[in-house]
Amino acid sequence: MEFKQGDWIRIEKNGTAYEGKVMPSMEGYITIKMKSGYNAGFSTDKVRITLLENNGEIANGSRNGWKECKSAKEETSEPGKKLPKVAILSTGGTIASKIDYRTGAVTSQFTADDILTAIPELKKIADFKGRVISSILSENMDSESWQNLARAVMEEIEAGADGVIVTHGTDTMMYTAAALSFMIKTPVPIVLVGSQRSADRPSSDNAMNAICAALVAISDIAEVSVVMHGTTSDNFCEIHRGTKVRKMHTSRRDAFKSVSSLPIGVVDYNTREIKTFVDYTRRGETSLKFKPGMEKKCALVKFTPGSDPEILDFYINGGYRGLVIEGTGLGHVSTKWIPMIRKATDAKMTVIVTSQCLNGRICDRVYDTGRDMLKAGAIEGEDTLPETALVKMMWVLGQTDEFDKAVEMLREDISGEITESTLK
Amino acid sequence: MEFKQGDWIRIEKNGTAYEGKVMPSMEGYITIKMKSGYNAGFSTDKVRITLLENNGEIANGSRNGWKECKSAKEETSEPGKKLPKVAILSTGGTIASKIDYRTGAVTSQFTADDILTAIPELKKIADFKGRVISSILSENMDSESWQNLARAVMEEIEAGADGVIVTHGTDTMMYTAAALSFMIKTPVPIVLVGSQRSADRPSSDNAMNAICAALVAISDIAEVSVVMHGTTSDNFCEIHRGTKVRKMHTSRRDAFKSVSSLPIGVVDYNTREIKTFVDYTRRGETSLKFKPGMEKKCALVKFTPGSDPEILDFYINGGYRGLVIEGTGLGHVSTKWIPMIRKATDAKMTVIVTSQCLNGRICDRVYDTGRDMLKAGAIEGEDTLPETALVKMMWVLGQTDEFDKAVEMLREDISGEITESTLK
Repeated sequence: MEFKQGDWIRIEKNGTAYEGKVMPSMEGYITIKMKSGYNAGFSTDKVRITLLENNGEIANGSRNGWKECKSAKEETSEPGKKLPKVAILSTGGTIASKIDYRTGAVTSQFTADDILTAIPELKKIADFKGRVISSILSENMDSESWQNLARAVMEEIEAGADGVIVTHGTDTMMYTAAALSFMIKTPVPIVLVGSQRSADRPSSDNAMNAICAALVAISDIAEVSVVMHGTTSDNFCEIHRGTKVRKMHTSRRDAFKSVSSLPIGVVDYNTREIKTFVDYTRRGETSLKFKPGMEKKCALVKFTPGSDPEILDFYINGGYRGLVIEGTGLGHVSTKWIPMIRKATDAKMTVIVTSQCLNGRICDRVYDTGRDMLKAGAIEGEDTLPETALVKMMWVLGQTDEFDKAVEMLREDISGEITESTLK
Repeated sequence: MEFKQGDWIRIEKNGTAYEGKVMPSMEGYITIKMKSGYNAGFSTDKVRITLLENNGEIANGSRNGWKECKSAKEETSEPGKKLPKVAILSTGGTIASKIDYRTGAVTSQFTADDILTAIPELKKIADFKGRVISSILSENMDSESWQNLARAVMEEIEAGADGVIVTHGTDTMMYTAAALSFMIKTPVPIVLVGSQRSADRPSSDNAMNAICAALVAISDIAEVSVVMHGTTSDNFCEIHRGTKVRKMHTSRRDAFKSVSSLPIGVVDYNTREIKTFVDYTRRGETSLKFKPGMEKKCALVKFTPGSDPEILDFYINGGYRGLVIEGTGLGHVSTKWIPMIRKATDAKMTVIVTSQCLNGRICDRVYDTGRDMLKAGAIEGEDTLPETALVKMMWVLGQTDEFDKAVEMLREDISGEITESTLK
């Protein structure tokens, strides 16, 4: 395989594909810069290298297809048994992070292949194909990362995946889950999974989380979900709807909780059975749709007592198009903030009100300040989580330039973020 | 009693005192403007009026003393039984709000007397004295309101109160509880209580909350606490430490939860017994200390993926002295934020990192971005709640102008906001 510095290539190693531009490399060793900006290095004798065209853009629809991954399939499948096809897209994060013994810190050093090697049991569940999307800590993800990831998920589904697993750092997993929920209408499960404890710690949750995620990926739950430990024991994982989930603890393995909603269901780690608690979209019920538009000029502002409403001016003057206010209680700010909310909506900025209580529903019709906020043009977020409301606003304003249309969309339930009756 | 327009007077009605400046009033009716800026109106035939000096400032130490409240005491006490003296300071909020049938909205129309009349059982628990501090919805409270309230609490304790109850709107109760926790070292219980459902609703929680608050006010728990429903049933109230409590639901009666900590204890509503779960400061253990200084130029900023770090510049340029960052996970922001955090600390702004997970402890020594934040001068908030961290920062910067001293104080546990081992 001939290639030179600056070429776009794909490197396949044990069934996982890496794409990037060839960097200056030593003999017998090749370094590529991936689209994420991160570099990856490989020994040339253990990999399969393909030259890409168009700066790494998709040359034809089958590039990510299953046909090219035969070798990986043949290695991992049980003979004679046809397993569902699941793509593992890795973005980085703790699920396969290791402690860097040089600095003592945990860094993202991960491939889907690492997981498949570490957890051989996975190979009995599905026929996996790995793809590295990025290798960054999740706090560095942004709307462009979401779009790149969504595009890759789309490609895998179009290429025949029966389910997609996205491995993701836990810090911003809820934001990415919400983003995928709005961007993709999916006929197959899209499962985000991560780990709170790195793989080299005895208490690591990565194996159980990965196995449960795989079981959800081949299930009939055709939604974007987050699958993580349900308790501190290794008994079950919860399946959270992508728009209703929140990281609620800095370090516990059962950090993820469905808020103002039951989880979609649970995966029993012993019996491998899935039990569901709420209605959900079933496999094949929806046809694949992709709307990746995202408006970056959106912000979330948390109100605190006595805080200066001039902060809203920063966003109005900065050309922001949307604002999520995390108010108190049923959705309140101080009366001093009302004229500035009016100013924002007059400037055709959409303003949605959510609550720092996180649980429960916004109702700005009860108290005076709430009613004043509605008069000033603010939209009640209902029981939408503040973080989900921000992602929704970015997505809505990425879909339309019309203020009235955006307001209408923000009031609607688009992907399970607003429920009719909030869990009491 | 002779007085004229513009005079400062105190009006006592059924044992509750209101203070303010006489406004133009109709005959037989008197209107005063209270320090809160709100007006209150009274029929002159049912009240006792005292002329105040010095624009309503305290003329002598006994003004708020118990001796002046004899009449209220004689009315309410059981004969022959000497009850503990408890001051009820009212600030407004739902606990005695009623629906305004003109607008359909709930407004604050409250006096301590309303509570005592509505809940006669209270009179068996303590000898109450009421005082109206303000009558505002709690989202309009700010650091000055906290200082006024703290001053009134101090006066009541100095005048001999065995306990103080503060009735408060639930929206920002956690912020006020934290503020009182830092400003006052108290030898007696200071109990904040509110209500999630107004008194004229059958599901109102105000009676049980008020009775449980009274029981805590006469107990030996000499801390600032929040006493509210522990479950959706009327079985017990939880006693939350003022720096560890958060409103976690927009509408449920059991909205308040201790976060990263057990509650101090519970009050059984049937047996009237208090059970405690953690160590606490006992009655008389601490002598009364009052440090009301508060720096307003502090802000809380919630990090979201892809958010523009320029927002920190708004605060740096605005002369802010302190910043609380609500980061992701163990206390992270994107790497793009690091130089701006450096810029803030270089400008002698104190920066503390907390987590939007709310539960658990900050640890910026694990991942790269966290380590970079520490190098940039950010302080780990440990297991301090973001809202408590903001109030603490305002208080710390109100106590000292020295950057290094402030950083040192922010690292220390001052009022139970940092615990040694966070609840797993």
